[in-house]
Amino acid sequence: MSFQTYFPIWGQLQPHQQRQLLDSLAFQAVKRDTVLRGGGTDCAGLLLIRTGQLRAFVYSEEGREITIFRLFGGDLCLFCAPCVIRSIQFDVTIQAEKDTEFWRIPAGVYQQLMAESTAVSNYTNELMASRFSEVMSRMEQFMWRSMDKRLAAFLLQEALIEGTCELRITHETIANHLGSHREVVTRTLRDFQSAGMVKLSRGRVTILEKERLEAMRT
Amino acid sequence: MSFQTYFPIWGQLQPHQQRQLLDSLAFQAVKRDTVLRGGGTDCAGLLLIRTGQLRAFVYSEEGREITIFRLFGGDLCLFCAPCVIRSIQFDVTIQAEKDTEFWRIPAGVYQQLMAESTAVSNYTNELMASRFSEVMSRMEQFMWRSMDKRLAAFLLQEALIEGTCELRITHETIANHLGSHREVVTRTLRDFQSAGMVKLSRGRVTILEKERLEAMRT
Repeated sequence: MSFQTYFPIWGQLQPHQQRQLLDSLAFQAVKRDTVLRGGGTDCAGLLLIRTGQLRAFVYSEEGREITIFRLFGGDLCLFCAPCVIRSIQFDVTIQAEKDTEFWRIPAGVYQQLMAESTAVSNYTNELMASRFSEVMSRMEQFMWRSMDKRLAAFLLQEALIEGTCELRITHETIANHLGSHREVVTRTLRDFQSAGMVKLSRGRVTILEKERLEAMRT
Repeated sequence: MSFQTYFPIWGQLQPHQQRQLLDSLAFQAVKRDTVLRGGGTDCAGLLLIRTGQLRAFVYSEEGREITIFRLFGGDLCLFCAPCVIRSIQFDVTIQAEKDTEFWRIPAGVYQQLMAESTAVSNYTNELMASRFSEVMSRMEQFMWRSMDKRLAAFLLQEALIEGTCELRITHETIANHLGSHREVVTRTLRDFQSAGMVKLSRGRVTILEKERLEAMRT
């Protein structure tokens, strides 16, 4: 599979724009945990993910984290290059959650395409609106939902992403996704275990009763 | 002052686009508290505010509110017409905080301009990024900041908007801005009053010591 098949508006570009884009690309592979944006990295470019998984999160002053969205194969990471849109005035850190392969589009090349092509600029609008919608959904969950509901929703989402009910994940990592403290996550997981919905073991959370978690998250 | 002077990319439109836009406009005035978006209203159009003030907020299932951004004279309300961008998948309610005058641009006309003009679509990108940045900032405040810091920041912002330290605002309204409960706001305001930073009276909060509130909010 090539860049052309991954870039959703490829067919709407002019031939010279297609050439310009292809010539500018760098294909890259990074290991899990690599920070791709934030922590002093430059605005190096937009990343079109081929395989793998990225996590965007923000830090509190005390170093707590909360995940605001995640990206998968086929997604374009616009916020990896916030400089392409002047009004993006917030800092996110973007980190590989798994080993990840991507094409890097230089920020300047993408900006020029946005200036020339309504297909590119409107696609960018849609991308930003998608991320905005995800952030709104996280924000509403964080503000209005109790920890047990949010944890149930998170475990079900992980099971969906990983395609298994046996999740290799630490309580610390879950806390960093949910903007919570490890102790709170541990306590809630133990409640779930006492109720027979999950089984806890070292570095692992196994979902035993999906339906009851489903019922809990709403 | 005319629409032309308020619409920031007027000069970047083609003459036929300018004509089309002008022909489609409706000028409207609404009273304070009018709901312009949400609660079953249609996706009627984008609003360019001439005078007044709008508030965008979300509801919890229990009916609590939190303000996510505000708009003033010269601002274009994109989220008054979420249908123009398919990927906007969240509900905000938009309400006039003051008597407000605006031009309404029909959604279809704006969409056509976005499809034709990179100036319009990139301007829309900047608009969305601005709102996104505001929401991120609110979210970070809500997640990581204590109530007294958030309340101090809110009172200072109100004083700036209103141009006075004597704010006509109820504790209920403040709670609805901050996503909190009235009782919590009242308790915190009383602490501020005991410390000599504000004076409370019926429907009114008077800021006595701006510098101490400034010091508190960070």
